[in-house]
Amino acid sequence: LAKTIPVTETRGGGGAPPLFERVAIVGFGLIGGSLGLAIRQTWPSSLVIAVDSKSVIETAMRMGAADVGGDDLVLAGDAQLIVLAAPVLANNALLGELAEYVAGDALVTDVGSTKRATMTAAEALPPRLPFVGGHPLAGAAASGVDAARPDLFTGRPWLLTPPLERPAPGLERLTAFVEALGALPRVTSADDHDRLLAYLSHLPQLVASALMDVVGTHAGESGLALAGRGLRDTTRLAESPAAIWRDIARTNPDHLRAALDELIETLEAVKADVGGGDAVLERVFASAAAWKRRFPPI
Amino acid sequence: LAKTIPVTETRGGGGAPPLFERVAIVGFGLIGGSLGLAIRQTWPSSLVIAVDSKSVIETAMRMGAADVGGDDLVLAGDAQLIVLAAPVLANNALLGELAEYVAGDALVTDVGSTKRATMTAAEALPPRLPFVGGHPLAGAAASGVDAARPDLFTGRPWLLTPPLERPAPGLERLTAFVEALGALPRVTSADDHDRLLAYLSHLPQLVASALMDVVGTHAGESGLALAGRGLRDTTRLAESPAAIWRDIARTNPDHLRAALDELIETLEAVKADVGGGDAVLERVFASAAAWKRRFPPI
Repeated sequence: LAKTIPVTETRGGGGAPPLFERVAIVGFGLIGGSLGLAIRQTWPSSLVIAVDSKSVIETAMRMGAADVGGDDLVLAGDAQLIVLAAPVLANNALLGELAEYVAGDALVTDVGSTKRATMTAAEALPPRLPFVGGHPLAGAAASGVDAARPDLFTGRPWLLTPPLERPAPGLERLTAFVEALGALPRVTSADDHDRLLAYLSHLPQLVASALMDVVGTHAGESGLALAGRGLRDTTRLAESPAAIWRDIARTNPDHLRAALDELIETLEAVKADVGGGDAVLERVFASAAAWKRRFPPI
Repeated sequence: LAKTIPVTETRGGGGAPPLFERVAIVGFGLIGGSLGLAIRQTWPSSLVIAVDSKSVIETAMRMGAADVGGDDLVLAGDAQLIVLAAPVLANNALLGELAEYVAGDALVTDVGSTKRATMTAAEALPPRLPFVGGHPLAGAAASGVDAARPDLFTGRPWLLTPPLERPAPGLERLTAFVEALGALPRVTSADDHDRLLAYLSHLPQLVASALMDVVGTHAGESGLALAGRGLRDTTRLAESPAAIWRDIARTNPDHLRAALDELIETLEAVKADVGGGDAVLERVFASAAAWKRRFPPI
């Protein structure tokens, strides 16, 4: 098969034999596309199979992010690793039908932003299709396959959630795979994952969207024209695709509601403090500044 | 007096005679320092007088942001333009004592983030010291004089709030001054200013701090180590100096409480929607994305 991008050596492996000869990626957006590019760069001899709509596949092929592609799940039939990279609820539905399309043995993983619902959906898979959940904590301002980059995962954590009965078949190989792509694998439970991500990722997204909604509605276009970097950065996430986030909210409602409750409580306390004493305001600013300084450099 | 930085021509004026021969800047942080640099670059022959603590003045002189400086307001005594660039409540207190230090005529302005309380405080000034409020909508990730830049105001709006009895003495000259520095002057009322800024600037700041407080407290340092660009951008403002924001909250409590109320209401509606129907979530995401796209390029 023709390779349309120059193959460069990476710290991940270069000419090393691929861990999986054939990898199928189902759902080819920012993460799926970046994964395709990273695999082709790390293991030039492995075959990347992309499954998505025809127009996405066209772009993917043009970018050199996949070797073959199409809109039929049957293409994943002889892959040794199947990566579900569609929105969470689509991944969960795919887990229910995957066994019909894949006849042999394959390791199955996903890259979704919530893990409990997906681990439950994966219980439908037969033993020849072991499942280990995955979530690369890598993002970009833009979404879609056009924004895909081979180094998206470099130096970024990649959380892995094996089923509770350990040792999980496939965990070791998936860990090696993720590591070879330059990411930092970390094993965790699905519930710990979903609770942590409610704070690290899901809450900031909802806040950015709610803030942009409120500010835009009030300031209007002429007011927004005056806004500086502060508002822009704080609402950077507000263009995120709604469909992805609807699935995340649906599959992490309890932790997300708890996180929203805490933020609302803090904002209520700040509001009560505004124009009165400054005790809450000073506590919140001091705590926020201290945490902000403890962010490791990216 | 020795000029310690190379003088370069700018679109603001170059060798044009300065609008004010002597400008005193009281409070020499990011805004005051940038103003000093911009004035010295625009009008090489004008004298910039900096008033702040001794250590700040030392830095300012080293950076070439002022010609003379010290910690005594008496230095502003013979300036023709006096710019108050300390936190809002300090500016307001200075307005009460300025007439004791300045014997002749001078135009007085400020660069504070709220305007109503400052306009009221300025009513104490004698007629020989006319006051026009000002607020350059320019910021940077860092604060303090060390972060000062001569081009901080280039292309940025600079809101001007004259007293209600117009035509305000000095408004025309201040408009020309701001324009010559490369900024975009816009005249508005103090109340319209404070309402708009509550949404454009004050609410995002409080939200960024509250979010960082809640997320840091929950995730801890090990959790934060996993966070990506989304959380970083959304909480970029969380390192802002508390003292400045305490003054802003104290002088804009009504508009700020109203803005907080609206955001809390939106977050409550989102919370009620999470895991249920998706109507609110989809409305907020669609509205936010639409407003985000309407931001003009910076």
